[in-house]
Amino acid sequence: PEGWTDLDTKAVDTVRALAADAVQGPQAGHPGTAISLAPAAYLLFQKVMRHDPSDTNWVGRDRFVLSAGHSCLTLYIQFYLGGFGLELDDLKSLRTWDSKTPGHPEYGHTAGVEVTTGPLGQGVGNAVGMAMAARRQRGLLDPDAAPGTSPFDYQIYSIASDGDIEEGISSEASSLAGTQRLGNLTLIYDNNKISIEDDTNIALSEDTAKRYEAYGWHVQTVDWTNDGKSYGENIKALNDALAAAREVTDRPSFIDLRTIIAWPSPGKQGTGAAHGSSLGDDEVKALKEVIGFDASKTFDVDPAVLEHTRGLVQRGKDAHAEWQKSFDAWASKNADGKAMFERLTKRELTPGWEKALPTFDADEKGVASRAASGKVLTALAPVLPELWGGSADLAGSNNTTPDGQPSFLPEDRQSKKFSGSPYGRVLHFGIREHAMGAIMNGIAVSTGLRVYGGTFLTFSDYMRPSVRLASLMKLPVTYVWTHDSIGLGEDGPTHQPVEHLTALRAIPGLDVVRPADANETAWAWKTILEHSDRPAGLILSRQALPTFPRDTDGFAAADGTAKGGYVLKDSEGDPEVILIGTGSEVQLAVKAAEQLAADGVKARVVSMPCVEWFFEQDEAYRESVLPAGVKARVSVEAGIALGWRGLIGDAGRAVSLEHFGASAAAGVLFEEFGFTPAKVVEAANESI
Amino acid sequence: PEGWTDLDTKAVDTVRALAADAVQGPQAGHPGTAISLAPAAYLLFQKVMRHDPSDTNWVGRDRFVLSAGHSCLTLYIQFYLGGFGLELDDLKSLRTWDSKTPGHPEYGHTAGVEVTTGPLGQGVGNAVGMAMAARRQRGLLDPDAAPGTSPFDYQIYSIASDGDIEEGISSEASSLAGTQRLGNLTLIYDNNKISIEDDTNIALSEDTAKRYEAYGWHVQTVDWTNDGKSYGENIKALNDALAAAREVTDRPSFIDLRTIIAWPSPGKQGTGAAHGSSLGDDEVKALKEVIGFDASKTFDVDPAVLEHTRGLVQRGKDAHAEWQKSFDAWASKNADGKAMFERLTKRELTPGWEKALPTFDADEKGVASRAASGKVLTALAPVLPELWGGSADLAGSNNTTPDGQPSFLPEDRQSKKFSGSPYGRVLHFGIREHAMGAIMNGIAVSTGLRVYGGTFLTFSDYMRPSVRLASLMKLPVTYVWTHDSIGLGEDGPTHQPVEHLTALRAIPGLDVVRPADANETAWAWKTILEHSDRPAGLILSRQALPTFPRDTDGFAAADGTAKGGYVLKDSEGDPEVILIGTGSEVQLAVKAAEQLAADGVKARVVSMPCVEWFFEQDEAYRESVLPAGVKARVSVEAGIALGWRGLIGDAGRAVSLEHFGASAAAGVLFEEFGFTPAKVVEAANESI
Repeated sequence: PEGWTDLDTKAVDTVRALAADAVQGPQAGHPGTAISLAPAAYLLFQKVMRHDPSDTNWVGRDRFVLSAGHSCLTLYIQFYLGGFGLELDDLKSLRTWDSKTPGHPEYGHTAGVEVTTGPLGQGVGNAVGMAMAARRQRGLLDPDAAPGTSPFDYQIYSIASDGDIEEGISSEASSLAGTQRLGNLTLIYDNNKISIEDDTNIALSEDTAKRYEAYGWHVQTVDWTNDGKSYGENIKALNDALAAAREVTDRPSFIDLRTIIAWPSPGKQGTGAAHGSSLGDDEVKALKEVIGFDASKTFDVDPAVLEHTRGLVQRGKDAHAEWQKSFDAWASKNADGKAMFERLTKRELTPGWEKALPTFDADEKGVASRAASGKVLTALAPVLPELWGGSADLAGSNNTTPDGQPSFLPEDRQSKKFSGSPYGRVLHFGIREHAMGAIMNGIAVSTGLRVYGGTFLTFSDYMRPSVRLASLMKLPVTYVWTHDSIGLGEDGPTHQPVEHLTALRAIPGLDVVRPADANETAWAWKTILEHSDRPAGLILSRQALPTFPRDTDGFAAADGTAKGGYVLKDSEGDPEVILIGTGSEVQLAVKAAEQLAADGVKARVVSMPCVEWFFEQDEAYRESVLPAGVKARVSVEAGIALGWRGLIGDAGRAVSLEHFGASAAAGVLFEEFGFTPAKVVEAANESI
Repeated sequence: PEGWTDLDTKAVDTVRALAADAVQGPQAGHPGTAISLAPAAYLLFQKVMRHDPSDTNWVGRDRFVLSAGHSCLTLYIQFYLGGFGLELDDLKSLRTWDSKTPGHPEYGHTAGVEVTTGPLGQGVGNAVGMAMAARRQRGLLDPDAAPGTSPFDYQIYSIASDGDIEEGISSEASSLAGTQRLGNLTLIYDNNKISIEDDTNIALSEDTAKRYEAYGWHVQTVDWTNDGKSYGENIKALNDALAAAREVTDRPSFIDLRTIIAWPSPGKQGTGAAHGSSLGDDEVKALKEVIGFDASKTFDVDPAVLEHTRGLVQRGKDAHAEWQKSFDAWASKNADGKAMFERLTKRELTPGWEKALPTFDADEKGVASRAASGKVLTALAPVLPELWGGSADLAGSNNTTPDGQPSFLPEDRQSKKFSGSPYGRVLHFGIREHAMGAIMNGIAVSTGLRVYGGTFLTFSDYMRPSVRLASLMKLPVTYVWTHDSIGLGEDGPTHQPVEHLTALRAIPGLDVVRPADANETAWAWKTILEHSDRPAGLILSRQALPTFPRDTDGFAAADGTAKGGYVLKDSEGDPEVILIGTGSEVQLAVKAAEQLAADGVKARVVSMPCVEWFFEQDEAYRESVLPAGVKARVSVEAGIALGWRGLIGDAGRAVSLEHFGASAAAGVLFEEFGFTPAKVVEAANESI
């Protein structure tokens, strides 16, 4: 392309040599893609993207998502060349303890990494989320700016491998990106037809470009293989395609970039061997000879090349300064917007927001916690504009739509039931839980927005890989998982969670919050939103739950929710047994305690909406709730007991469900499966 | 179509009336699709499919998968009309306790249900698996028959809803079905553009037919909406399309059937309200008026209609008898094949098969359990032809390819690395773990074949919804999950399982088997294959594990593996502490016990490869392994401790990993994260 020099060509070859050398160290890694994609990555990082190596958090930067996370060197070497903070020693310590260059890019660990990738397909979903976040952010801060003129306009680029294309999550996210008309998104498919099992023809024979056309994307092909006849890295063609992609603003862009993996490695190009293993000394030397490098040297970088590529530091500063002018101009005219922007950047909530939280009067019939959650969202919508979200086609069931709020939809995608605008705040993911999870992660990493997404608790399984990544990245996303037990009723065992609470509590860093009534639900939202350093799953009932009479009749206030576990209703005098319940089963513990009291047994009821929060409390508090001296304990939760053994101890009894559910009315199921006050009383007596 | 009578038309309308009535009972369910798809379902069940209501296990039957499982009435009403065993009372007890008509179709519960569906997208994957199973079965039993002439030739039909189409799992499975050229598969997409959030335009705007063309499918459109201008149920057009689909044998077929949900319900057709809620009395009456039924009656079936539709019973018997002739002719010429067929039908293994299992000599350096598993598969391949499987693009890493065995691939999909035939036995799923899971379920329900599928343990998350369904259906599928801990090393936290063992053990009915060495691995395979009533996950190491000296030096034989937990190496005299390990951590327990012995502490080492199997043993055996009197216990497993609390008790200590891993060499990680004999010794002393 214009302005491309011999030094650029040499820099690209330097990338190849460094990639080959770096993997020789740990003798494991993925050199092939880093070698053959060197020109594409270099073009993006040095010529195309607007970014500032000195400030990788600059809000106006273009974003890059390496969905093909195994090719981490594609990023690390550009970070080195561009001056983002990595040096040769970092490349030399690839994949070793405490290095800045782990085996897959890790968000928050290496400056410039926008999102943790590696589990395939996730990055495509993240990029879609980033593109959606950019539009929502623009809508909040600068909605009237002409396209491309706002300081909040930027591009999202992503590179996907064959594996990303095969994973269903990328299909889900890409279909939705078409519906959402995400013109700020460009996905480059490194179509090299090689994966770990070598030639992808054994498992992937589709016409992927046509598939993306079917999604409504703007599709271009850049064929460096010249239909298999000869290989030529036509960088201008790729640059032109990227420019065309930016020009198309009413659709996302897909570039089918046909490459040969590990090219020009003479012995291993185009083979699965180059994908996931070091090339070996001989092949590294042969590669260096092909590109005219000294085969006897490793990590050999011509100072002129580095000086040339580090020019990006100043260019980045200049671009940033230029942008700052437009930002300042915007800020001077938008004092409120600027205040909001700064608040969001710090992930702070609107001062006094919590006053908007509803409280619920005592009511024996009560309300489903999903309905209470819906009322909370409706109440918070006006005071927390950054809070947005939706459902995987279960909006009405998940109660995720705040009353009167507009949908986030292009003009031509609105329906009778859901109107809105491209800047709206109610998200419609379709029946795509997995993409929903990845999109939420993309939203959370790229802006200060707070996002939630709903489905039935059972289908948390469909999105689990993304939930794990949110936990690993410590992202403040909130899952609204309703229909949280056999209380779901007639839909039967496929839809009734049994093992899910335990399986989710198993994920390190995820808060699993299952409120017992409407007021705990409000406190759960409050506490979740006050955490900006972790994801949470809010576990809600389909069926009505009694709203306990707080601060009367021996019931504690609901603020104990924030501590994860608290004495909801104590016995008169020291307890002989502690009944620990969560969610819809707390009412059973309350009734059982009353029965036990009538029988002369002192039972304390502990509501334990969030085990994780409880264990964050100091020992004195925990001891005050669960005194070590009281060994008789009963857990009551409509799920497996596995996770409760530690809390109830050797003498404890669990009222639990150790098998799948069944199709019948909820009341019948609770009765048939032994979730009754009488069973809790029985367990308490056994435990004593 | 030819032969269609007024009674057929009335029968179709009877379906609609029954669907509307049935949902009025529980006041919840999904009437809309059952009403509008009535003609399609009736055509399939009464006119198109070859099946026998009196024998729903007939191997020669065509299979039908209702991927849109929420529309269970689509099945139940055909079962009623066709004489499969349901009567009007069953329809009246829809979605109630102990009925034959649960909220979603359940395999093994209602005769005629081929697979449990409801979690969307799964059925499409199941159908692809059934189509693959049919080909493999044919290859085993009748490979040389001309197309369409074998008693093992049958068709697989499936109906998918918008939700099935949106879920990524169906994209994965459909892409692979194109690669596999599954000509025996026809997928009907009920394209009604309505889901729970009403008009799907808010989330689904793709050209789905074009997408299936991109996958390489044979695609037809049957548009009953006449491009939105008028509605006409052109049953002949659908019948013709089904016939054309059968004619195309080198590709799967996709029929884009454009319908209006709940048609001709006058007030609710084409609305989300008709999807998942009862129509309400007024609308049910209005519907009956439109179709000329007595609106004052419910569950009203004209005896002439029932007599007409129950004619299927005799037609089915006739077809079965006709088929029996061809089967008998085949059997008379294929005595070995017939014996194998009967063995597979009973899910019995080849007599003496276990003699082929390898044993492994003691070796301190040892072998990775994944490698031992590969040797087992290679050894079993010749004696268990029904055992087949593959990997989600990690064949070499999962060691799932038995040496010298052919791939299951159409002629034009083979590669240099993987040759084979359409009848081969090594499966290549591509990087599609979720589809792999659903395909395995489809294979397991439709034939006596035993299938396994591999990926990294971390990515069990990607396939978890299918694993849950295998557990719910009690299907004998085997997951080969390798790289089972931080022992995976350099790839880092995205690829290192931490919570997965616990999360999988949480699923009711799934055996989680983590052998400690090569001989336990062989015994694990043996025990897994001897179970035909449940799935199992085989959890294998990347890194080498010492092969213990069995029956010498105090080590027990490996046959204890079959009991789930056993004393691997006992203390001299009654133990003071019990060290319980699994997999790669058992060696740490062994070394710790030696150290403790040197310190004068008597420590027993228990290897616990499968907690589920252990709890199936009688109490006396369990007590012999874990005497209640020995309270000092230590669990050693490179994952979270959550699941071990019950086994180690209040006095126990867990050597565990309560956070995510890191990118470094495995040895470094075990050391840094405290998995050393010294730490186990420390924990043992604490516990004592």
